Amino acid sequence: MKQITVWGFTQVPPAAQGLVRDLRVRWALREAGLAYESRSIAPAERKAAAWQSKHPFGMVPAIEADGEIRIESGAIVHAIAEQCEALMPLDLRTETITWMFAALNTVEPPLWNLFLMDELHQGEEWVKLRRAGAVDEARARLRALAEWLQDRDYLLGCFTAADILMTTVLRFIRHTDLLAEFPTLAAYVERCEARPAFLSALREQLAEYERQAAIAA
Amino acid sequence: MKQITVWGFTQVPPAAQGLVRDLRVRWALREAGLAYESRSIAPAERKAAAWQSKHPFGMVPAIEADGEIRIESGAIVHAIAEQCEALMPLDLRTETITWMFAALNTVEPPLWNLFLMDELHQGEEWVKLRRAGAVDEARARLRALAEWLQDRDYLLGCFTAADILMTTVLRFIRHTDLLAEFPTLAAYVERCEARPAFLSALREQLAEYERQAAIAA
Repeated sequence: MKQITVWGFTQVPPAAQGLVRDLRVRWALREAGLAYESRSIAPAERKAAAWQSKHPFGMVPAIEADGEIRIESGAIVHAIAEQCEALMPLDLRTETITWMFAALNTVEPPLWNLFLMDELHQGEEWVKLRRAGAVDEARARLRALAEWLQDRDYLLGCFTAADILMTTVLRFIRHTDLLAEFPTLAAYVERCEARPAFLSALREQLAEYERQAAIAA
Repeated sequence: MKQITVWGFTQVPPAAQGLVRDLRVRWALREAGLAYESRSIAPAERKAAAWQSKHPFGMVPAIEADGEIRIESGAIVHAIAEQCEALMPLDLRTETITWMFAALNTVEPPLWNLFLMDELHQGEEWVKLRRAGAVDEARARLRALAEWLQDRDYLLGCFTAADILMTTVLRFIRHTDLLAEFPTLAAYVERCEARPAFLSALREQLAEYERQAAIAA
């Protein structure tokens, strides 16, 4: 991959800063030592024809690499990892892909639902009725994950692309006390977030919001 | 992959028959011409230590192949597709993986939420308050997908592993009239479901329920 551009949003509410999925892509690129440029679209442009010609679902992230547009954070991280043995070690290739799907298809849904309830639908009547049940469902997944991580620093022992996805998924409930119930998980997230590549990626995502806020001001 | 065993459930309620995710794996195996044996666990055994040693999240499907256990329907279909060029054509490899993630991480969540509301939480007060909003969110994703499929018989022109995942995702709302609102999508699902490999896979999943019901009777 060469001449890489990553698209995120120009601006999102504080609760979503550091959670938008271009963070996954920035992090993987930094781990792989691949330079990239940042571009951004206003959330209001998501549905515009110009953006939809890049992204059929009108979402972020998208990247351009080698002149081609790619979408879906999971698929982009997969493609980056295939070019970087540290992110997808040859002898752990199957396991890395398994845990990438586990992060996005098994752990993310109940955690993302909780994020939406608390941040997008906060105070709505249905949330009051539903929240306790949704927390129980999230907790069941977290308990299983904590069990798995009990004797492991990372999902597969060493750090891989699966940890990038899993950490960004666990960040969706950073506004709750749920991770604190599972010290194994809290320590895992802290361990992953301490990586220089994560810190660069986060800084670069937030810098884009600041830059755009300065332009708008 | 040799000596393949696929695990599903012994029995599920009628509303879930034909939707449990081992269908994805059976279908991919049939498309790839790989024979497999069926095994099943009772839903009540999901949380038992014996099963959790195979599957950390206590779910199905799991498969055993070449003496190793694999989990996560998306990852298993990915692994099968890597062994079968028809499911992941070399010149469409990136795009196939992109649309596999799109199916599971972008289209599945709102459709799965609707399935859970209508089948697992049917009649609950929060569902009455929330359902219309959830339908709108599902509809937005379906509209974007229908737009994409307007000039394509399959997601990438020809049938790939991404169509296996997308079709099984769209089946989650078979109990609603939503697909009928998008004739392009209804025709797409019908086209995919007409494939002999799908019909065999479905028959084999349902046969397991019948076999187990006969044992229990």
